[in-house]
Amino acid sequence: MSSEAGPDRIFFTEVGPRDGLQNLPLELPTEAKLELIRGLLDSGPDLVEASAFVSPKWVPKLADAEVVMSRLIAERGPEVLSLVRVLVPNRQGLGRALAAGVKRVIVNVGVTDTFNQHNLNRSTAETMAEIGEVSQEAAHSGCLWDASLSVAFGCPYEGRVEPQRVVELASEMAGMGASEISVADTIGVADPDQVSRLVGALAERVPLQQLSLHLHDTRGMGLANALAGYRGGVRRFEGSVGGIGGCPFAPRSTGNICSEDLLYLLQRVGASVGVDIEGLCQVARQLERTLGRELPGRLYRAGIWEPESAQAG
Amino acid sequence: MSSEAGPDRIFFTEVGPRDGLQNLPLELPTEAKLELIRGLLDSGPDLVEASAFVSPKWVPKLADAEVVMSRLIAERGPEVLSLVRVLVPNRQGLGRALAAGVKRVIVNVGVTDTFNQHNLNRSTAETMAEIGEVSQEAAHSGCLWDASLSVAFGCPYEGRVEPQRVVELASEMAGMGASEISVADTIGVADPDQVSRLVGALAERVPLQQLSLHLHDTRGMGLANALAGYRGGVRRFEGSVGGIGGCPFAPRSTGNICSEDLLYLLQRVGASVGVDIEGLCQVARQLERTLGRELPGRLYRAGIWEPESAQAG
Repeated sequence: MSSEAGPDRIFFTEVGPRDGLQNLPLELPTEAKLELIRGLLDSGPDLVEASAFVSPKWVPKLADAEVVMSRLIAERGPEVLSLVRVLVPNRQGLGRALAAGVKRVIVNVGVTDTFNQHNLNRSTAETMAEIGEVSQEAAHSGCLWDASLSVAFGCPYEGRVEPQRVVELASEMAGMGASEISVADTIGVADPDQVSRLVGALAERVPLQQLSLHLHDTRGMGLANALAGYRGGVRRFEGSVGGIGGCPFAPRSTGNICSEDLLYLLQRVGASVGVDIEGLCQVARQLERTLGRELPGRLYRAGIWEPESAQAG
Repeated sequence: MSSEAGPDRIFFTEVGPRDGLQNLPLELPTEAKLELIRGLLDSGPDLVEASAFVSPKWVPKLADAEVVMSRLIAERGPEVLSLVRVLVPNRQGLGRALAAGVKRVIVNVGVTDTFNQHNLNRSTAETMAEIGEVSQEAAHSGCLWDASLSVAFGCPYEGRVEPQRVVELASEMAGMGASEISVADTIGVADPDQVSRLVGALAERVPLQQLSLHLHDTRGMGLANALAGYRGGVRRFEGSVGGIGGCPFAPRSTGNICSEDLLYLLQRVGASVGVDIEGLCQVARQLERTLGRELPGRLYRAGIWEPESAQAG
């Protein structure tokens, strides 16, 4: 599937298996993760963020990254590698990812120093320098790399974030050769007008077709924010099936926007989403059974509206 | 509080105590309903839809409508009557409401015959004739009346609904003297473009300032739909605190959009909402304890974003 099919074609990355599961207050066995990833791949997103090659000391839940990758390759053949992305925090992580056969990684930096210090234990500038090395090494190995900018709409430590700061970092990432630059509302504080303004500012320095929005629904505005991004020309979006994953800064709160709700909205306003939305709903229903609790997503519970099959009676 | 304070002033009606509670799979005792209504009144919405004067045979949960009204008047004085609206299905209901001192009612009609037949056991035309009588009697008694049009965006029995049909009924209601005409997405199937189109069509025949949107979040698009309405000039909205109330046509699904999430969104994009949003969040938190379960709303769990109080460190 290609993102070049048309001007309203959405390039969609499903982040549930990595970002979603990482932020749940429980751990899934590897087999259940694989079942989830299989269902997601079958529904046809452009990418699935399958795992992260981070230190098992920091994120024990993702210690099975190698196993997940080798199982996927064994089951689906090496073609699966064009549909899979993994997070790598540093050169060590990249080395593990490359050894596992990975062909696309995502690196992350916090837009504010304080957040980056808390999250990655170094300054934003230090992380940018490290990303410089990681990205070169990835490029040399024929591995695509995407960049994620955390807390781009607000920071739990510093509060407001200067849009110009986000634009500078995004522009720097584009200059370094990032395939996609994902702007993240990590703590779910953006509003639609803010999204419109930031997308407008970013579009002056970064090609719109490289820009992705990673939005959260922590305060209920996730889909309205996504629509503002779409109206502003963004065609790349990330989401988490069923809306799984919490917000680490607001216990009990919703995190990632729900993939199938997002894609349904975009499809309803005319976008070509290239994903089997009903398939995603079925994955969410299965995941609800696996996790034993209702997920934040709405569509998988209500079902897609099919006016033609309504029964007068 | 007045809706005439400025062009971006929202006129907000809280429907939780009636529409929300009516569609929950449990019943609250009268005292708990009163506690809810008190909290809502204290947060300052323009109206609270407090109950319905319907046959207790049909809706046993709302059989305490007279008690609720008399307690509210006893506690808050007759001034409370300008802040309270009740649903009445027919002349008998209106008689009970007037006897209870009510000064504002809402009547309802289904836009499609099949829905109206299922819901009210008669054709849309028959209900419109009945509303003609009820509205005249209300007017003679100095009681304001609002009109609600159900399934305006889609019908569970007939599927698609012709926008022109909604416009005709709304226009008829305006001609009959309705104070507010509330267009309802009863089963939660609207999308933002559909909202924009219907609002545009309605605005040609009904004064925009009389038009209200009653939206559901059944498929995740509730707030995006509300924003489309706001951008189209709608300034009247309904919502349910905490998002309580289900969708009778999709078990387990979310119904009404969440009041505090909606008002927070509208405030963030520049509207003057005239409601204490944090107060509404507190009501939702209390209601969660009363009901013993998490509510669909997002903001009451995450909290209002206050960038100034973020702590660098």
